[in-house]
Amino acid sequence: MNGADALDRIRIVLSHPSHPGNIGAAARAMKTMGLKSLWLVQPAEFPSPVADARASGADDVLATARVVGSLEEALAGTVLAAAVTARRRELSLPRVTAREAAGQVLAYTRRGDVAIVFGSESSGLSNEEVALCSMPVTIPTNPAFSSLNLGSAVQLLSYELRMSAMQPAPVFGDENPAQPATHDEVEGFFGHLEKAVIESGFHDPENPRRLIPRLRRLFGRVRLEKEEVGILRGMLTSFQRKVD
Amino acid sequence: MNGADALDRIRIVLSHPSHPGNIGAAARAMKTMGLKSLWLVQPAEFPSPVADARASGADDVLATARVVGSLEEALAGTVLAAAVTARRRELSLPRVTAREAAGQVLAYTRRGDVAIVFGSESSGLSNEEVALCSMPVTIPTNPAFSSLNLGSAVQLLSYELRMSAMQPAPVFGDENPAQPATHDEVEGFFGHLEKAVIESGFHDPENPRRLIPRLRRLFGRVRLEKEEVGILRGMLTSFQRKVD
Repeated sequence: MNGADALDRIRIVLSHPSHPGNIGAAARAMKTMGLKSLWLVQPAEFPSPVADARASGADDVLATARVVGSLEEALAGTVLAAAVTARRRELSLPRVTAREAAGQVLAYTRRGDVAIVFGSESSGLSNEEVALCSMPVTIPTNPAFSSLNLGSAVQLLSYELRMSAMQPAPVFGDENPAQPATHDEVEGFFGHLEKAVIESGFHDPENPRRLIPRLRRLFGRVRLEKEEVGILRGMLTSFQRKVD
Repeated sequence: MNGADALDRIRIVLSHPSHPGNIGAAARAMKTMGLKSLWLVQPAEFPSPVADARASGADDVLATARVVGSLEEALAGTVLAAAVTARRRELSLPRVTAREAAGQVLAYTRRGDVAIVFGSESSGLSNEEVALCSMPVTIPTNPAFSSLNLGSAVQLLSYELRMSAMQPAPVFGDENPAQPATHDEVEGFFGHLEKAVIESGFHDPENPRRLIPRLRRLFGRVRLEKEEVGILRGMLTSFQRKVD
């Protein structure tokens, strides 16, 4: 199963969302990360033009959203349910971070559907709801201000799921296919540079003051491309020509 | 320096945000992750009751936000500027992911202030704005729908910064303890370079052939140190002097 198929098996479940704008924001957040399956447990208002507006192009996620009457219905048939919760709870299972959870959730998608459950904006998940889930998940936040917006919480979990699903494929491989300069070309440039700074009087080989090693370090760091060596040497030639 | 101090040195810069709601969402997103410093370049509407409402308790971040007239002002004094951009661009530097960027940004906070720049909702960052930054950052998204909300993009970067800042082990050793050049120093060098290549006849502003963007890309990649800017400018001056 590839990463995209794995993401298709993840349900984002919003329990009792009170603001339709957050439903739209969640849909958009999911789609940006390749998630599709949105479940709504007793939303206060849905469908809603406010949700449509905030979805901003993720209309398909809203159109296929499932509205159900209880969290049990949303979890039916899943092989794992994770509850996103900010509060520590008495008698709770050990919490895992969003990043750790993403890896575990992805592993479970090989066996079937997985749910990630978010509580209402005002009060989060009830103890009863958390008890229906087997994995409490926490998003690390500033202890002095942990009030994540619901759409933001969905965004962060969706992002971690995508990051996990898309491993270990190279994230940005050969995006910069420019031809690197060869060793000889780079050395040719250094020789040219040294000659130019001697001619201009900037560099005195009798009193070198480590100029050449410093310039080598600078241009060595940049990993020059073939075309760039051409540009730099053309520039040096223009400076030299003026000297004559 | 501990993780919280490092986060204090990070500026979140929103260039030309058009919706005050997104400014509020960004403030809330920042505060949940322990970030404080918000800079706004020509916001369409600010202050705004809509921003206040969406900030939802992050009023202090809005109250201390700096409103400036240009991106240059927002970057003044920074030692690194990262540009969050969805598009691939011609002549661009290699892009790093949000996660990779977070580690590098944190490492730079040991030397000074760092900026993370986000473009407007409708059109993102202009090529000119990206050219002022030395690290293009991308948030991995669904290629078929990469339209992240501005507040969500700020949330994801802020989260990665917090995750990185709170890691117990230092990610980067101090392998390169040299003082990096500030944004202003690097821009001073670019101005000097442009003048010198015009004087030498290598660059014709009427027929630019993309020379300046290419040189910016080359020297942007190297992340110049303070001393190196001094050396390069001394060298340019020596070339210019010979011309007279």
